[in-house]
Amino acid sequence: MAGPDPALLSINAATVRAQWTLPRIIDGCARHGIRGIAPWRDQVAAIGLGDAAKRIRDAGLTVTGLCRGGMFPAADRAGRRAALDDNRRAVDEACALGARCLVLVVGGLPKDRAGTIVSRDLIGAREMVRDGLGELLEHAQGAGMPLAIEPLHPMYAADRACVNTLAHANALCDELCPKGSDGLGVAVDVYHVWWDPELAAGIARAGAADRLFAYHICDWLVPTTDLLNDRGMMGDGVVDLPRIREWMEAAGYRGMHEVEIFSQETWWKRDPDVVLATCRQRHAERS
Amino acid sequence: MAGPDPALLSINAATVRAQWTLPRIIDGCARHGIRGIAPWRDQVAAIGLGDAAKRIRDAGLTVTGLCRGGMFPAADRAGRRAALDDNRRAVDEACALGARCLVLVVGGLPKDRAGTIVSRDLIGAREMVRDGLGELLEHAQGAGMPLAIEPLHPMYAADRACVNTLAHANALCDELCPKGSDGLGVAVDVYHVWWDPELAAGIARAGAADRLFAYHICDWLVPTTDLLNDRGMMGDGVVDLPRIREWMEAAGYRGMHEVEIFSQETWWKRDPDVVLATCRQRHAERS
Repeated sequence: MAGPDPALLSINAATVRAQWTLPRIIDGCARHGIRGIAPWRDQVAAIGLGDAAKRIRDAGLTVTGLCRGGMFPAADRAGRRAALDDNRRAVDEACALGARCLVLVVGGLPKDRAGTIVSRDLIGAREMVRDGLGELLEHAQGAGMPLAIEPLHPMYAADRACVNTLAHANALCDELCPKGSDGLGVAVDVYHVWWDPELAAGIARAGAADRLFAYHICDWLVPTTDLLNDRGMMGDGVVDLPRIREWMEAAGYRGMHEVEIFSQETWWKRDPDVVLATCRQRHAERS
Repeated sequence: MAGPDPALLSINAATVRAQWTLPRIIDGCARHGIRGIAPWRDQVAAIGLGDAAKRIRDAGLTVTGLCRGGMFPAADRAGRRAALDDNRRAVDEACALGARCLVLVVGGLPKDRAGTIVSRDLIGAREMVRDGLGELLEHAQGAGMPLAIEPLHPMYAADRACVNTLAHANALCDELCPKGSDGLGVAVDVYHVWWDPELAAGIARAGAADRLFAYHICDWLVPTTDLLNDRGMMGDGVVDLPRIREWMEAAGYRGMHEVEIFSQETWWKRDPDVVLATCRQRHAERS
């Protein structure tokens, strides 16, 4: 199979967040010929929204997504309202940055303000996610900002996201936007969904409804030594990336390929110029 | 909801394997009024199959499963044949022990003899699993030993089991035994499947076909610090165990509740009599 167009490479700013601030990441992308970026809200806040937007615009970078909104479930009504308010601000920030979408990590079991899980009701948490999405969607549609539900790996179901399969994300889209995309879609991150026997079907279904808003790549390492921060560089793990890309392309996805690697012990310790150069090479040769 | 019948408690011998040999575990079960056990093959081999069978029989324990067969995918035909031969021996050992089923952890991506993953073809691995199951099933049916496919958590898809949902396990049963159980079913382990939005439906479907062969309990801790050996005691994590038990019972499951906890830093370091007493208490009060 032919390699991907190198111009489609985007860098999620978490990939070098341990080494560089957002301005340096933006400069790094320019230096390495990388044409897309996905910043995190804390990185944007650190330099101010206006400055971040200007720097990204001046560098000519496509913002493949803003990370992140979501975290809808909460212990009480006040907590859910606070989450919704914060999500509305995230939508507005995504608009200011000209992002292609706001990425949503929907949240897990309800937590109190201190961050402690207060319920084991996973079905109820999923209802809170649906309701929160529905409320946020009105604001996002008004602002013209697409919302991308990112199914997270099932190992994050309790504490980060209780939407863990593309089938579930697709079902939420169908329920909330029965007539098609309407500004609600999905972010397909291979790290979270590569294992799913229904992945090809889920990608095809999302594509048919114009709901493929983002595509994130990295690799699953064997062994994986940490649940959060031991993601691999493309080619270093077991994910059949060319095959998944082929499914994405067959489903009509023409967007960028965003490299998002959380890697405490390896890539966050390396020279970030080496990290970006490696991303370029592995994107071209192993994705 | 009413608590479970204490007489239904079974102990998977891995739960205290760091502290005790199989004879001591058997004695411990008797001492704590625990009426079921699920030994591992290496524990049985350490004292000899005949001796293990006699001790378990003399103690009046129900063997809720033998752990384990499976690991079907391999790099080459010789490797797959060796796996099948070993699986046939596992069936025979399960018969000698009078086990209710042989638990199958089906294997992940194909490995060579040194244990190195040699392929990223997950779809191909799943075909090897189906084929291996089909071959083993003939021997198991002849021996009268039920085979229980245990879907493992998706975080083990690469290296331990590429069957990661109850839906997939049910589909394999349907394909290989279209007329009903016929000696092929599933082991439902809450640790692996608690997150699945299709879990209730999968349990109901398996129950309707008389395929619920085993039920394993423990808990999912937040945070989980190790992918393998950081399982929690019932009540210490986020799994809604009474609700899942209710689904099992509604689906017709009347078998035992097998506690299987891999816990390097906590339960494998405690006095095993305390572990068993805690299992009893938490089974009664939190499961």
